[in-house]
Amino acid sequence: MRFARRSSSAELRGAVTTSRELFNVRTPPQALDVLLQHVPARADGEEVPTRDALDRVLAEDVSSPADLPTFRRSTMDGFAVRAADTFGATEGLPAYLEVVDEVLMGHAPNRALGTGECARIATGGMLPDGADAVVIVEQTQEVGQATIEALRAVAPGENVVQVGEDVRTGDPILPRGHVLRPQDLGGLVALGVTAVRVARRLRVGIVSGGDELVAPEQAPAPGQIRDINSYTLAAMIRRDGHVPCLAGVFPDDYDALERAARAALEANDVVILSAGSSVSARDMTAQVVDGLGKPGVLVHGVSLKPGKPTILAVCSDKPVFGLPGNPVSCMVTYDLFVSPTLARLTGAVRPPRRTVSARLSRNIASATGREDYVQVRLEGRADGGLDAVPVFGKSNLIFTLIRADGMLKVPLDAGGLAAGAQVEVVLF
Amino acid sequence: MRFARRSSSAELRGAVTTSRELFNVRTPPQALDVLLQHVPARADGEEVPTRDALDRVLAEDVSSPADLPTFRRSTMDGFAVRAADTFGATEGLPAYLEVVDEVLMGHAPNRALGTGECARIATGGMLPDGADAVVIVEQTQEVGQATIEALRAVAPGENVVQVGEDVRTGDPILPRGHVLRPQDLGGLVALGVTAVRVARRLRVGIVSGGDELVAPEQAPAPGQIRDINSYTLAAMIRRDGHVPCLAGVFPDDYDALERAARAALEANDVVILSAGSSVSARDMTAQVVDGLGKPGVLVHGVSLKPGKPTILAVCSDKPVFGLPGNPVSCMVTYDLFVSPTLARLTGAVRPPRRTVSARLSRNIASATGREDYVQVRLEGRADGGLDAVPVFGKSNLIFTLIRADGMLKVPLDAGGLAAGAQVEVVLF
Repeated sequence: MRFARRSSSAELRGAVTTSRELFNVRTPPQALDVLLQHVPARADGEEVPTRDALDRVLAEDVSSPADLPTFRRSTMDGFAVRAADTFGATEGLPAYLEVVDEVLMGHAPNRALGTGECARIATGGMLPDGADAVVIVEQTQEVGQATIEALRAVAPGENVVQVGEDVRTGDPILPRGHVLRPQDLGGLVALGVTAVRVARRLRVGIVSGGDELVAPEQAPAPGQIRDINSYTLAAMIRRDGHVPCLAGVFPDDYDALERAARAALEANDVVILSAGSSVSARDMTAQVVDGLGKPGVLVHGVSLKPGKPTILAVCSDKPVFGLPGNPVSCMVTYDLFVSPTLARLTGAVRPPRRTVSARLSRNIASATGREDYVQVRLEGRADGGLDAVPVFGKSNLIFTLIRADGMLKVPLDAGGLAAGAQVEVVLF
Repeated sequence: MRFARRSSSAELRGAVTTSRELFNVRTPPQALDVLLQHVPARADGEEVPTRDALDRVLAEDVSSPADLPTFRRSTMDGFAVRAADTFGATEGLPAYLEVVDEVLMGHAPNRALGTGECARIATGGMLPDGADAVVIVEQTQEVGQATIEALRAVAPGENVVQVGEDVRTGDPILPRGHVLRPQDLGGLVALGVTAVRVARRLRVGIVSGGDELVAPEQAPAPGQIRDINSYTLAAMIRRDGHVPCLAGVFPDDYDALERAARAALEANDVVILSAGSSVSARDMTAQVVDGLGKPGVLVHGVSLKPGKPTILAVCSDKPVFGLPGNPVSCMVTYDLFVSPTLARLTGAVRPPRRTVSARLSRNIASATGREDYVQVRLEGRADGGLDAVPVFGKSNLIFTLIRADGMLKVPLDAGGLAAGAQVEVVLF
C-alpha cells in the first residue's frame, strides 16, 4: 500500500471519462423522435385469410362491401305482423290475426302478408313483405288452428332489425393500422370479407456480442455466462407480432461482429445488436453500426436509467439498434425504442400498455434530467388498494425483472418519487 | 283486424314462457362456481424448449439448479482490488497499486491478487481470488507502465456482484401455473434450463348450430347469414393460448347436431356449441348437451345480459358449453365462463384483464339481480380524463362490438348506473 500526495488529477480524469457516450445524450422522447424521423411507414402488405388475421395490422382501410343485415330480421320469437293491425290491442281487447305462414330459419317467407295476417317467426327469421313488426310470443295467445290474439300493440319496426342497421354498404368499418381483434374478424366474415391485406410481419435480426457469452445449452467455463438477451428480445419481438431471427453469439472482435451485423442487415428488416457490457465493447458496437450504411448512428447515449448507452441508427433504410448488454437495460430499451419503431414500420396503432395504479412504498431517488425505470412488485393492501414495492437489485440482474410485476417511470424532471405517492405501474 | 274481449290470458301465457331456461337461473359467479366444482385442474404437461415457451403455463414449480452468477463479477469497468489496500485513499493522497493482471472477458483471471496488487477488469469480468472490490476507472489514474493510483477508498463488495446474489441453487424461481413472460425465459436460459414442462395446449371444438347459417365463403340466400361465432370464438381461444378446432355449421336438427357434438367431444378437450338463436334451437342444444355424458347440464340460464340462455355442462369429464347464438352474447359468455374454465384446466394463473377508469356519459338502466355488460366507446376529455360512451345497438349486432373499445359491468345488485359515475372499463 503506497500513498502519495497529488495536487490535482481532475484534468486527467476528464480525459478518461470523455467517451462517445457523453456526446449527444438525448432524452428518451427526443431520441425516439430523431430515429422515427428517419423511419418511414413502409406498409409492405400481404393478403391473408381473415380467419388467420388475429392481431395482424390492417394495411389498408376496409369499408363494407354489403349491408348487414341483408334482410329484415326478427329479434324475438313470435309473429311477424303489420303493426297497424295491432294498434289498440290490449289483453282485454286483443287483435285477432290469421296465421298464414311459418317463416323457416334460413329461408325466405313463402308469401307476403295482407291486412289481418301474420306469420310465425323465430329470432333471426326473415320478415315477410308487408310485415313491419314482430309481436313476441309471450304477448300472443293461440286460438284455434290458425288464429292468434295479439295482446299488445306493437309499433312499426318493433322487434325488427332493418337492412343495413348494423352496417351499410360503403361504410368505413376498420382503419389502416388497426390491430385485428376477435370481434373484427367476426364482423369481416359476417360481410363475406374472407381475406384482408395486412402488414407483413417484420424479420428482426438479433446479434449478441460479448466475449463472455455462451449459448444456453453450453456449460459456462469460469468467467463465462449464458446469453440471455437473444431470448428475451426474441420473446418481445414475438409479442409485438414479428419474427425474431437469432444470429447467435459473437466475440467482441470488430471483424466478426461487423460480418455478423452485415449479414443480419441483409437478411432482416430490422437489426438489434445486444452489445458486450464493457465500455470498449459498447464503443466497438457503435463503430460497427456506423459502418453498416448511411445515415448510420443517429443517437448514442440517452438520459435514461437503465439504458444510457443505447445506440439508435438507420443504415441503408433499415433501423439498427445497439442495446446495452445488461438484461434489464436491454428490455427497457426494447420497449422504449424498438417496439415503437416496429409499430411505425407497419403503421400499427397499438393500444397503450396495461397499467395499474398503486401507492409507492418507499422513496426513490433519481437525477433530474433523466428518466428512471424502477421494477416494482405489487402487494395488495387491507384497504383493497395496491402497494408498489421497488425491487432493487445491484446491477439490474435478470431475476429482479422476474420478481417484479411491472415498472414505474420516474419522469425526466423529477428528482425522485416520495413514499406514499400514487404511481402508474406498467405491467409486464 | 278483429278484436275480442278476453277476461284473462295470464294463465295461458304462463304456460308458453315456462321454458327450461327459467329453472335454475343462477348469477354468473354462482354458475361458474357450479361448473368449476366439476372441472379438475388436470395439468397434462409436455416438455418444450424454453425458447419456445413464451405465454405457456408452467406445469410444475421450477427451482434454480445453480447459483447465478456462478462467479463474482465486476459491475463496472475499472480495477479489481483488495478493498483494504484503498482504505484512506483520497485524490490528495491516493493509494498506489501494482497492475499484475488484466482479466479478459469470458476468462478466469490468470492469478490471485496479493497485497498492493490489482487487476484491470471490465464490466462483467470475473474477480480474481484475493480481490474483494472494484475501483471504477474514473477514480483511478495510471502512473507509469504497471501502476495506478486509486483516488478513493472502496468498501469490500463495492462494484461486485457476489456468487448467488441474483438467485441461489434450490431457490424457488417460478411457480406452477405461471404464464411465462420474456424475462422468465431469460432467467431460465441464464440458469441453463433449456426445456420446461408446460401445460398442454387444449383442443377446443366449436360446433355452430343454426338452420340460417352458412360458411363465410358462401353467398347467403335470402334468410341466411354467415357464421360469425366460429371465428370470434376461435380467435378468443387462440388468445387464451389454446387450439380451436372448427367443426363447421350444422342445421337445427337433433341428430345432426348430436353427431357433430359427439364427434367434437371425442376429438377435443372442451366443446363449445354455439346455439341457434331461437328458443327451440336453444332447447335442442340443451338436450343434445345433456345426452353427451354424465353429469350433463349443470347450469341452464344465467342472470346475465347479454348471455342469459347460457348452458354449462360437464360430459364424460369434459367441459361442454352451449353459448347463445347472438355474437355479442357469445363473446361475453366466452369471457365469463369458457376462459376461466380453460385456465382451471391448465392451472394457469392469468393476469387480470386490462382495465381503464372512465366517466360514464349517460344513465344505464339495468334490472337488479342481473349482471349487465354494456359495450362502450372511450372518448378523451379536455381535462385528460376519459368518457365511457355506451354503444347501444338493437339486438347486440356484431358491429356494436367493433365500434366499442371495451365493456363495463353493471353489478348484480345495481338497478343501473348514473351518468357521471366513475366506472372501470374492461378493454378488448
